[in-house]
Amino acid sequence: MPAKGDTIDPAVRIRARSASDDKGPIIAMLAALDALKAAKKAPTVNVKFFLEGEEEAGSAHLGDLLKAHKAVLAADAWLFFDGPAHVSGAPQLVLGVRGVMGIDVTFYGPNRALHSGHYGNWAPNPGVAVAHFIASVRDMDGRIKIAGFYDDVPAIADADRALGKALSATDDSLRTSLGLARTEANNAALGERIMLPALNIRGIRTGEVGGGAANAVPTSASVSIDFRLVPDQQPTRICELVTRHLVSLGYTVATDPNAAARSTDRAHLAYLGCGGGYTSVRVASTLPSVRAVQTLMTRAYGREPFVMPMLGGSLPLFHFVEQLGATVITVPTVNADNSQHAPNENLRIGNLWDGIGVMAELMAGLGPLWPGGASPVMK
Amino acid sequence: MPAKGDTIDPAVRIRARSASDDKGPIIAMLAALDALKAAKKAPTVNVKFFLEGEEEAGSAHLGDLLKAHKAVLAADAWLFFDGPAHVSGAPQLVLGVRGVMGIDVTFYGPNRALHSGHYGNWAPNPGVAVAHFIASVRDMDGRIKIAGFYDDVPAIADADRALGKALSATDDSLRTSLGLARTEANNAALGERIMLPALNIRGIRTGEVGGGAANAVPTSASVSIDFRLVPDQQPTRICELVTRHLVSLGYTVATDPNAAARSTDRAHLAYLGCGGGYTSVRVASTLPSVRAVQTLMTRAYGREPFVMPMLGGSLPLFHFVEQLGATVITVPTVNADNSQHAPNENLRIGNLWDGIGVMAELMAGLGPLWPGGASPVMK
Repeated sequence: MPAKGDTIDPAVRIRARSASDDKGPIIAMLAALDALKAAKKAPTVNVKFFLEGEEEAGSAHLGDLLKAHKAVLAADAWLFFDGPAHVSGAPQLVLGVRGVMGIDVTFYGPNRALHSGHYGNWAPNPGVAVAHFIASVRDMDGRIKIAGFYDDVPAIADADRALGKALSATDDSLRTSLGLARTEANNAALGERIMLPALNIRGIRTGEVGGGAANAVPTSASVSIDFRLVPDQQPTRICELVTRHLVSLGYTVATDPNAAARSTDRAHLAYLGCGGGYTSVRVASTLPSVRAVQTLMTRAYGREPFVMPMLGGSLPLFHFVEQLGATVITVPTVNADNSQHAPNENLRIGNLWDGIGVMAELMAGLGPLWPGGASPVMK
Repeated sequence: MPAKGDTIDPAVRIRARSASDDKGPIIAMLAALDALKAAKKAPTVNVKFFLEGEEEAGSAHLGDLLKAHKAVLAADAWLFFDGPAHVSGAPQLVLGVRGVMGIDVTFYGPNRALHSGHYGNWAPNPGVAVAHFIASVRDMDGRIKIAGFYDDVPAIADADRALGKALSATDDSLRTSLGLARTEANNAALGERIMLPALNIRGIRTGEVGGGAANAVPTSASVSIDFRLVPDQQPTRICELVTRHLVSLGYTVATDPNAAARSTDRAHLAYLGCGGGYTSVRVASTLPSVRAVQTLMTRAYGREPFVMPMLGGSLPLFHFVEQLGATVITVPTVNADNSQHAPNENLRIGNLWDGIGVMAELMAGLGPLWPGGASPVMK
């Protein structure tokens, strides 16, 4: 079953919300079963399918569900078909995922908008506060400046660094396609960057800009941030560190979003909302089960997959590790330029085709290759 | 004609867009004429009325109009009834106004929104850029950090500083009413602060916050700023200084808002749009014409007005100075808590009443008091 996806015009895509993340892989699983049936081949492993519909909303019920159905869900390994393939279009095998957590921080000015001429450099401006806060937590090169943030972050192993570099051969062309002559930290390799924790500004809101801007001091300013975490970083600990950071800047930290309405010192109040988040998980590249999947991917795609120590994105894999003690291996199938979570999300038909192929190959081939002849479960 | 406005319940207000700024004063002028007629008193000066409808939009045509009608508009002085009275409710006489200019600055990230997990600390985040820019131009105490910004700013004269302090007796109660325990620069007097130039954040926009926030690197981030200027600061010079500041931060500065679409180095491009703006003007507190107005205000209100060397807000008074060489004196009548330019703008009926009174007093009394018996024009 050689990879046919590469022969399909890359412009041919399905454009729809969640096309790649992750309606496409769900359809591919069903099509892979149909393909095996049509080819009169049976899977060589017991296959269980598990679909999680709450991932983008924080998977609030996943842990309890896994715990409650431990026996039904017992498996030698879990294969995940989420996340994108390599930006070059090459297949890749993913051994871990970064964790994630979101925070919202709001700063306050006067309790009513004030004319900026009459009160403009007297009443504290929350837009200035939010800007100074952001500048205090992260530099222009992505380095996080919150005290203690890197305490739980291990150094990147040399072997992982080499795998990361191998994944970054396409960085230059990716930069060009994005209109970026330079990327953060002096063009540091993408494959290495995603092994580090990150602080991303999702959005900032205060007052108005452009034609709607008024000469006024706004009453509040908000920033939404997502953190990407690496193994051993705990979301609750990050929330604590941000709280301490705000206190060190002179703010009283409120967890009630309505606290400002009662405050007599609004300019020194900050609302902090911390999302639950996921921790990061990963498996070692040396596991025999990882080798078996690698062999079958090579067979399906007609070439060796890249091995990615860590996916930059986040999946709720920690639940499977915590509740089931599972070995989790991720086989991404969708195109990297799918605009996941953004306008015009899309799935390249070539990637859908190859995704069906690799799923069928794994179902048909894992049995004989599996260490000890055990049966992995595919998600 | 004693001040009756103080006896009217301060809660009784007209709430409407522009109620105070400045439909109220226009109606008051007409009512003052009616009052004189009813009292069978004639104005003791020649009165010309001049209404400018484009002030909030930058008064693009005012200069040309004054130039074209120089003879018709000739006058010994111009009285302006714009801006708010003192926050305590006391009358005040204003001898100058700060200038103003607006700028819009946009920073850029990748040309399409990127998943923050996969590209989050690799692709430059424009939200980080806009925050670092704001933090680089202004500190938390209102000090402007743009090189050369204070070169054209004279020190505040001791006499003006004393007038500013006198105006600030109500700062504490104003802070309390605004939910602010402390204001900028360690509770520096409002009356002094408005004699200084200011940098106000009108708004910041990038990505989304709260429920709408996506785990994505946004494509651009914008900030809208207004500067308040003091005598001798020129808007064009401020625009030059901001341009130089952006260059010093490593940006190529574009004046075309569509430049990013063609850029191959979006993360180092900044769009800068500079508004036209007003320069600052002021008259000396020692002028005999200022004394005449002061005497009549005292008569109308039954108490001495505060003398404010400079109004924090901005009026296009420089046109009258540049085109007509006019003496400009401002007599604000509306309440200070009028929420000008913001939701729920309002005019206190007591202020409307007293405004009518002071206008009638000036029309009836200026002639005999005027130095040399000349005729001022009321706007």
